[in-house]
Amino acid sequence: MSGNTFGKLFTVTTFGESHGPALGAIVDGCPPGVPIDEETLQRDLDRRRPGSSRHTTQRREPDRVRLLSGVFEGVTTGTSIGLLIENTDQRSKDYSRIKDQFRPAHADYTYHHKYGIRDYRGGGRSSARETAMRVAAGAIAKQYLASQGIRVRGYMSQLGPIAIEFRDWAAVDDNPFFCPDPEKVPELEAFMDQLRRDQDSVGARISVVAEGVPPGLGEPVFDRLDAELAHGLMSINAVKGVEIGDGFASVAQRGSEHRDEMTPEGFLSNHAGGVLGGISSGQTIIAHLALKPTSSITIPGRSIDVAGAPVEVVTRGRHDPCVGIRATPIAEAMMALTLMDHLLRHRGQNQDVEVSTPRLS
Amino acid sequence: MSGNTFGKLFTVTTFGESHGPALGAIVDGCPPGVPIDEETLQRDLDRRRPGSSRHTTQRREPDRVRLLSGVFEGVTTGTSIGLLIENTDQRSKDYSRIKDQFRPAHADYTYHHKYGIRDYRGGGRSSARETAMRVAAGAIAKQYLASQGIRVRGYMSQLGPIAIEFRDWAAVDDNPFFCPDPEKVPELEAFMDQLRRDQDSVGARISVVAEGVPPGLGEPVFDRLDAELAHGLMSINAVKGVEIGDGFASVAQRGSEHRDEMTPEGFLSNHAGGVLGGISSGQTIIAHLALKPTSSITIPGRSIDVAGAPVEVVTRGRHDPCVGIRATPIAEAMMALTLMDHLLRHRGQNQDVEVSTPRLS
Amino acid sequence: MSGNTFGKLFTVTTFGESHGPALGAIVDGCPPGVPIDEETLQRDLDRRRPGSSRHTTQRREPDRVRLLSGVFEGVTTGTSIGLLIENTDQRSKDYSRIKDQFRPAHADYTYHHKYGIRDYRGGGRSSARETAMRVAAGAIAKQYLASQGIRVRGYMSQLGPIAIEFRDWAAVDDNPFFCPDPEKVPELEAFMDQLRRDQDSVGARISVVAEGVPPGLGEPVFDRLDAELAHGLMSINAVKGVEIGDGFASVAQRGSEHRDEMTPEGFLSNHAGGVLGGISSGQTIIAHLALKPTSSITIPGRSIDVAGAPVEVVTRGRHDPCVGIRATPIAEAMMALTLMDHLLRHRGQNQDVEVSTPRLS
Amino acid sequence: MSGNTFGKLFTVTTFGESHGPALGAIVDGCPPGVPIDEETLQRDLDRRRPGSSRHTTQRREPDRVRLLSGVFEGVTTGTSIGLLIENTDQRSKDYSRIKDQFRPAHADYTYHHKYGIRDYRGGGRSSARETAMRVAAGAIAKQYLASQGIRVRGYMSQLGPIAIEFRDWAAVDDNPFFCPDPEKVPELEAFMDQLRRDQDSVGARISVVAEGVPPGLGEPVFDRLDAELAHGLMSINAVKGVEIGDGFASVAQRGSEHRDEMTPEGFLSNHAGGVLGGISSGQTIIAHLALKPTSSITIPGRSIDVAGAPVEVVTRGRHDPCVGIRATPIAEAMMALTLMDHLLRHRGQNQDVEVSTPRLS
Repeated sequence: MSGNTFGKLFTVTTFGESHGPALGAIVDGCPPGVPIDEETLQRDLDRRRPGSSRHTTQRREPDRVRLLSGVFEGVTTGTSIGLLIENTDQRSKDYSRIKDQFRPAHADYTYHHKYGIRDYRGGGRSSARETAMRVAAGAIAKQYLASQGIRVRGYMSQLGPIAIEFRDWAAVDDNPFFCPDPEKVPELEAFMDQLRRDQDSVGARISVVAEGVPPGLGEPVFDRLDAELAHGLMSINAVKGVEIGDGFASVAQRGSEHRDEMTPEGFLSNHAGGVLGGISSGQTIIAHLALKPTSSITIPGRSIDVAGAPVEVVTRGRHDPCVGIRATPIAEAMMALTLMDHLLRHRGQNQDVEVSTPRLS
Repeated sequence: MSGNTFGKLFTVTTFGESHGPALGAIVDGCPPGVPIDEETLQRDLDRRRPGSSRHTTQRREPDRVRLLSGVFEGVTTGTSIGLLIENTDQRSKDYSRIKDQFRPAHADYTYHHKYGIRDYRGGGRSSARETAMRVAAGAIAKQYLASQGIRVRGYMSQLGPIAIEFRDWAAVDDNPFFCPDPEKVPELEAFMDQLRRDQDSVGARISVVAEGVPPGLGEPVFDRLDAELAHGLMSINAVKGVEIGDGFASVAQRGSEHRDEMTPEGFLSNHAGGVLGGISSGQTIIAHLALKPTSSITIPGRSIDVAGAPVEVVTRGRHDPCVGIRATPIAEAMMALTLMDHLLRHRGQNQDVEVSTPRLS
Repeated sequence: MSGNTFGKLFTVTTFGESHGPALGAIVDGCPPGVPIDEETLQRDLDRRRPGSSRHTTQRREPDRVRLLSGVFEGVTTGTSIGLLIENTDQRSKDYSRIKDQFRPAHADYTYHHKYGIRDYRGGGRSSARETAMRVAAGAIAKQYLASQGIRVRGYMSQLGPIAIEFRDWAAVDDNPFFCPDPEKVPELEAFMDQLRRDQDSVGARISVVAEGVPPGLGEPVFDRLDAELAHGLMSINAVKGVEIGDGFASVAQRGSEHRDEMTPEGFLSNHAGGVLGGISSGQTIIAHLALKPTSSITIPGRSIDVAGAPVEVVTRGRHDPCVGIRATPIAEAMMALTLMDHLLRHRGQNQDVEVSTPRLS
Repeated sequence: MSGNTFGKLFTVTTFGESHGPALGAIVDGCPPGVPIDEETLQRDLDRRRPGSSRHTTQRREPDRVRLLSGVFEGVTTGTSIGLLIENTDQRSKDYSRIKDQFRPAHADYTYHHKYGIRDYRGGGRSSARETAMRVAAGAIAKQYLASQGIRVRGYMSQLGPIAIEFRDWAAVDDNPFFCPDPEKVPELEAFMDQLRRDQDSVGARISVVAEGVPPGLGEPVFDRLDAELAHGLMSINAVKGVEIGDGFASVAQRGSEHRDEMTPEGFLSNHAGGVLGGISSGQTIIAHLALKPTSSITIPGRSIDVAGAPVEVVTRGRHDPCVGIRATPIAEAMMALTLMDHLLRHRGQNQDVEVSTPRLS
């Protein structure tokens, strides 16, 4: 399969450039009977939408999604689901300056070498705008997962140098950072205000969890659940690292400390992040992702042009000083899509399995 | 596709349990004309082989690989390549004690819930022994990549709490740890000796790099090169985290620091780890992986049995106190397989592309 | 992959119901640099369009296709291509009579059992209207294939009991039947007029050929070129049989008759239809397909309703009395998509192959 | 995926050349708990085995299959299943004469152009010997399907010019032709004896049916059940045509004749061959395939060599004068593999579907 499809049994295929006429997706393999409408999808899209606070890009897109197929009388029919968002805020501007230059740390240089041609307007296909369709598709997956008792949620766990402890799910949607600790919000705001004055950008760490996942999801040896989660999360723009459970902290741990012991009442810890041997254990699935600082900053940078000559590049336009701020709904979407695909794959093979052993969590 | 296949155009499919009659793999999509013989594969297998030092499991397997098809008169023919390793050192022992128990932090519990049945002898399919076939298949990929000027190598960059600086490739194969700093080896040995006395285990961090990769590999938006590398590396037993380039350190970096500026002489830094927008940039590809401590330790642990009753588990047998010690060749194999697949996929679509812009590195 | 995607490296994924808001497709893996615009696609769509003669359904759809991504300044960029056709002629009518009935020989009964729910308006997803997106995607493939010297064309070779000899490509687009023998057209028209008076329907046989295909396309042993052609052609609505070359006539042939001998001047015959051992030989690829008679006829038929009770069904509405009449462009599209995918897959693996042996045709 | 894998959720990947050391397969995605042993597989292999009558090639291979993984204590475990057959009867002979020549109607010429290199001994990968692994894998699928009440069987329905009516399943395994009409056997034997005297070969038509298939299998619009059956059956060596139900006879039928009416007691006919809209209807699945005459005959034929010079080729060695004679078990295997894959895919998506409408057959 080419690179714009995610999943094997529950699949999402997307298209769309930042400044083209529209973005779209096809969700295939969705079970029939799932109640879904445009509002279901819109809620998650609105959480990802830029322009909702002064800390994100001021590009204003209504991002109205249309459901074009696969849904009849309010429920899915099992056929492929077409989704479309028309691009409306495509400022016509002069791109002649950047069309022959490669912005440092952007995909300009690599797209140019791969395809020999690129839509340079607003980053084209490599723009983070593409992730809107992931969020829309993820909302369908979330809707079905919810019917199976599975809930996927995320939050920001670090902004630049500021680590954030998890406090409270209720807080997460009450601030533009998806910060789970309301007392940290003023510090984050002050940090971002200073960053804008510095005309610089910064990275972020996002955490995403899934509760209620039954044991058994994941297809060893290559399509382990954690491996596919890593695939999905690392495919998000700007992500440079993925951890499951204790992640890199496991390196310095001893086996007697890391192993999650079990009793009839449940697991005594969750260092593994809910995955053992590549298969969900019934515990909460925990993943963390690292996002690099936005590459689009107005501090001049050295680069070359298409002829190989040196140039100084200044990236103007509307950009997020921290792409991580809007990444939480995208990370949730990728986890939801991964779980959904694995739920269906597991059922396909193992529908007949009956186990009398109690399930722990 | 089911879970035992990796790749899309250059694919590897594996089978085999720890204590079954044999392990095997089918490599499909290999270009014709690649000189290959059993010795080529054996060299990498011997690097992964247990029993080569006192720091790894004392299970002794000659791990002799047979090439069963796809090679004629010493070169590949383009047809599927069959590989086989017969298991010879399957100690017949009494497994009755563990067949109804779930070892903590092992895949016992999750395989049981997924499939309802499992080959409990030596971990069955979830044993690290499975990775032998990855190494054999990876050796074929490495051989072809070498003909294209691409070299994949790895080393240990941390053992438990001991961080290891990269010093020298020549040192890596001169010690059982794949440690690139010869002066660190005595410290590692002392640490491992104490660990064995403690009857405990520890994690490790492995780094793997690919030099000579041309720009253009990777299939956005979902099959980005970094996303597929994350998939491949996270699919290795015991891996809990994957980083590309600066990875989690990117979170606290500023854009002006993280971005790799370009001049006609080349990139000025490599924070990105050789991947921009999911596509290789021509710089060295850099990935790091975190391996958790071995779960098989003789310190008793709490668990349950298949009836849900509490049990105390002590894992006996021959086990690595640090699975990370033998992970370097496996990580190399997964990177080689990923690059190989992407090289072929890229060519399939973009064979006609000609770019006059100079390539940097 | 779920069922709405065709191809592996050059892929087409479609969505859309007969009476939903729109049909769409995503073409992924297209090489960059292919000149393409909406008019390129429209030409083939217009050939498939209903309402163009009295012998096809009178549903009138302008079938205007929009190119939503993957094309920049008139050429493809290598990113995924979004296609959209809005449905405009969705007559609002009363479906209450048929929503609980299964029309004989339609997909009503099987969709109902598979999904438990179906969009019964105009056949929903099982409507032949879905094939419009195949034609649009196929036009992209044809455009690229043409640049490689490959031309895909089709014609009707039998209408009901009337066999049609191939005479002349120029004639094919001069009549509503895609009939290659202009002298046969009056007979076909008279036959169809009588058929309408009988309120009955009839089957057809379509032939499709590809000239200029280089030797080497096809991936044994399962993804042989002929096997994938059979897959693609049999996936067209109403197709019940596929032949390559002499097809079923081969059964009664002797080896001394069937085998296509070779001389330095070329093959002496083409019984094989251009495929040997599942790989293209350089000869013209020849395939034939059988389409069953339209199921939607006004002659009452016995059936059951969703409760299992007997009903008499009369299918009203606008229907083709011979679906085969419009099948030629669809068959061409499926052959073009198959060849395109195989061209890219072959290149991915075998780019380095150089053979001095002359190519025959 | 490369070309040596069949299926998506239940997959078979094969390797092996005619004169290499061994043939093998990996079956992935098999549900756990299926009772299986080497004898189960051997029974079907013995039906396909050459040398069992004077009408097939006299190559004598014991074709002993080994089960190398995925089975524990006599039942499948859900992990990948490794299968192996060692080649034992590889007559060492002089291939120097044919290594630089292309036998007419063989894959020699196309493999040479595709890969630039080929194992010319006994046809290498293009030999029908490859189908042994299909039969072994198909036996696993058959075993599971049987547990679900699904039975796959085939028979010869035409040998050269001699049409054979279906009479009796019991007769099929009582003669070397899989002929269902015992009274026809002497005629077939006389025909074959004359054919051998003529040193010529002939084609055959095989029919294969599946009884007990539930409604709902098949994934529109591209992975329709009939389309995937066509793919699987056309991928068998020498197959040139595939029909579902009435196949090419449908062309001349009228809609009022072809449509299978339904009553509460069941379908009144089965022109469709058990598939409507690409989904199984609950009726018997019926497919027919056309096999071309064997290309290996001793009557001299014109061809070229690798330098393009004209040569006269005489194919010596042990060959079937009618490859169709041994094709019945292979066709059964491909139908079983297709149904198995679709059964699992259907379950994955539609496990929750409940329909109160009665099932017809």
